[in-house]
Amino acid sequence: MPAALWCHQAMQKNRLEAFSDGVIAIIITIMVLELKGPHRTDIAALKPLLPVFLSYVLSFVYVGIYWNNHHHMLHATKHVNGSILWANLHLLFWLSLFPFTTGWVGENHLDSGPVAVYGIVLLMAALAYYLLQRAIIAGQGRDSLLAKALGTDWKGKLSPVLYLTAIVLAFVNPWIASGTYVLVAAIWFIPDRRIERVLEHRE
Amino acid sequence: MPAALWCHQAMQKNRLEAFSDGVIAIIITIMVLELKGPHRTDIAALKPLLPVFLSYVLSFVYVGIYWNNHHHMLHATKHVNGSILWANLHLLFWLSLFPFTTGWVGENHLDSGPVAVYGIVLLMAALAYYLLQRAIIAGQGRDSLLAKALGTDWKGKLSPVLYLTAIVLAFVNPWIASGTYVLVAAIWFIPDRRIERVLEHRE
Amino acid sequence: MPAALWCHQAMQKNRLEAFSDGVIAIIITIMVLELKGPHRTDIAALKPLLPVFLSYVLSFVYVGIYWNNHHHMLHATKHVNGSILWANLHLLFWLSLFPFTTGWVGENHLDSGPVAVYGIVLLMAALAYYLLQRAIIAGQGRDSLLAKALGTDWKGKLSPVLYLTAIVLAFVNPWIASGTYVLVAAIWFIPDRRIERVLEHRE
Amino acid sequence: MPAALWCHQAMQKNRLEAFSDGVIAIIITIMVLELKGPHRTDIAALKPLLPVFLSYVLSFVYVGIYWNNHHHMLHATKHVNGSILWANLHLLFWLSLFPFTTGWVGENHLDSGPVAVYGIVLLMAALAYYLLQRAIIAGQGRDSLLAKALGTDWKGKLSPVLYLTAIVLAFVNPWIASGTYVLVAAIWFIPDRRIERVLEHRE
Repeated sequence: MPAALWCHQAMQKNRLEAFSDGVIAIIITIMVLELKGPHRTDIAALKPLLPVFLSYVLSFVYVGIYWNNHHHMLHATKHVNGSILWANLHLLFWLSLFPFTTGWVGENHLDSGPVAVYGIVLLMAALAYYLLQRAIIAGQGRDSLLAKALGTDWKGKLSPVLYLTAIVLAFVNPWIASGTYVLVAAIWFIPDRRIERVLEHRE
Repeated sequence: MPAALWCHQAMQKNRLEAFSDGVIAIIITIMVLELKGPHRTDIAALKPLLPVFLSYVLSFVYVGIYWNNHHHMLHATKHVNGSILWANLHLLFWLSLFPFTTGWVGENHLDSGPVAVYGIVLLMAALAYYLLQRAIIAGQGRDSLLAKALGTDWKGKLSPVLYLTAIVLAFVNPWIASGTYVLVAAIWFIPDRRIERVLEHRE
Repeated sequence: MPAALWCHQAMQKNRLEAFSDGVIAIIITIMVLELKGPHRTDIAALKPLLPVFLSYVLSFVYVGIYWNNHHHMLHATKHVNGSILWANLHLLFWLSLFPFTTGWVGENHLDSGPVAVYGIVLLMAALAYYLLQRAIIAGQGRDSLLAKALGTDWKGKLSPVLYLTAIVLAFVNPWIASGTYVLVAAIWFIPDRRIERVLEHRE
Repeated sequence: MPAALWCHQAMQKNRLEAFSDGVIAIIITIMVLELKGPHRTDIAALKPLLPVFLSYVLSFVYVGIYWNNHHHMLHATKHVNGSILWANLHLLFWLSLFPFTTGWVGENHLDSGPVAVYGIVLLMAALAYYLLQRAIIAGQGRDSLLAKALGTDWKGKLSPVLYLTAIVLAFVNPWIASGTYVLVAAIWFIPDRRIERVLEHRE
């Protein structure tokens, strides 16, 4: 492929990535605005902030995972079309609700309502990610790099089931529900070597 | 065209796109700051947030449409000059008022005043987009890719008329006015295949 | 110059531009957070917001001018070094105070104190821009494109004098002081065709 | 190396840089939101804002140093892998806490608790930077440009010791502790010419 054409397609995709990076960067950063310095100044005064801090850490890791996988997925994408642009915006929409749910969970020390809503937004984001994946594969063909790289996609299939379970569990025991969110994050935290490996093979 | 020169022009344009992406990414994300977790923690406590949420969804879709069309329009742009830079900033100015009007409408459950002002900002943004389009076509020539791609531009001509109608209607029935905003969004949501098609032809 | 080398230098500079764009995009957008929807919902309720709105418009234009000129100046820059990086951060520091001074002026309907402080930040930003210009020229040589393009730089020399005058005037008549800020913005608004022209000549 | 391949790797890295730039740009800018215009409008009314302003200046310089060094370090990086992506996110996490600690220190006029916590976050960020450095060197090899450029890395080794000292000192005399933070910033402010010099040699 001539350099100019390669460059051209890369630039196209580049803008989608740049915009997504911008939105994700803002989401990941404004969540910290929920952390407000207490009026007292001793270290113990920070203790009530602990649940806010922990929910921030969890959401930071989640947004980090999404950014990471988004990075890998688009790395394996060649053409960008209208459906991909909108599927991407749809994903960003659900991610943009993370600061809201994170703040609500943190302020209320893991109450049932906020924990369930936190899970609903996680579920919707997972669904949106799946739809984006579909849109990209539809544009590249079933034999494409991405389709191969995904393989059985067991993580992508297991996560929604775990989220659903956790949403129901939130009304029984919000701590177990929250633990399930941590578990899903841990599953994904192990970086998605699948795409990386296939790309390395090619290069 | 040699690769280096092509790259050079693309980079020029690239910074305009990057800055616009940054501003639009922030606009689309800070709107969510209006959504504040209620003090109660049952799911029913979210009910009063519904109008805030719906106005957020509508504005998110509008900003998404602008970003999408901006993306396509600049994709068909070759040269960037001073008038284009300022026409672009002018568009960003009106878009930057979206979080304000979105918040005002959401908090006041679709009262006449906020709904009318929401429409005025939509109208001004549409006007600014039109002026940017003019500035780009002026820089590229009437026979340019963009001029061809736009064709009759019926969407661009219909929208301001609908906005104006809705602004007047807001004082009669704000619900019909809001419905008109949803209608315009729906018209644009159908992606602007015109430019995409002409570009595909060329490639 | 071979394409790869050209590309390499452009990428180097690119990151400086991208970071600056990011910071400027956020500055220009968070200023709008000062605009808060009033509790009443009639159009007349917006009247007290007018000074906040006008100070937002003025600051938006100022930040737009800085972005525009920054864009042109870096377009004419080849090498980026440590001094340029820090001179750039220094400029961003003063620009980052715009939301603060804009908010203070807007809330206090053009009182002497806020108007003077608004001018001091404008003056410091102008000084920082001048230092960045020096750092770039020092890195490119006096015969460089940028040095030629700037010529006598009468705007750059006149602005600080006008700012200083306005800062003193703020304590006599804040309206005349504010008018002076509008005047300086108007002088710069006329885009800096100097650099554009020299660049066009070269291409 | 052919231009296209070079371009490809650069683009890969580019997205990591772009995302980091976005997050750092937001961090550096939202810190200014702590500066709130006082209700009185005389210049003297700004005096209570002085500690907030000074802690903002110090944190701005720190974030500037991190951006600068990050810029240089990634400039000397060729391949980006999963470990680097996560090490980078880990660094961004600690940097994202700067607005919180800056606000807490500023509001409480350098009390022991906030000053110590400010130091703890500085320490963790330094540690995260060190881990990112390790991850990059592990990916490039010990003979790499970056490994050479770092040399003995005395700054990187001295800083954590000084931070630790300052954290303990905060409970004895928060002013000396704060002075230590200023000292570390001053040590780093002298730009990291090491990497720059090695890069220049190569070019």
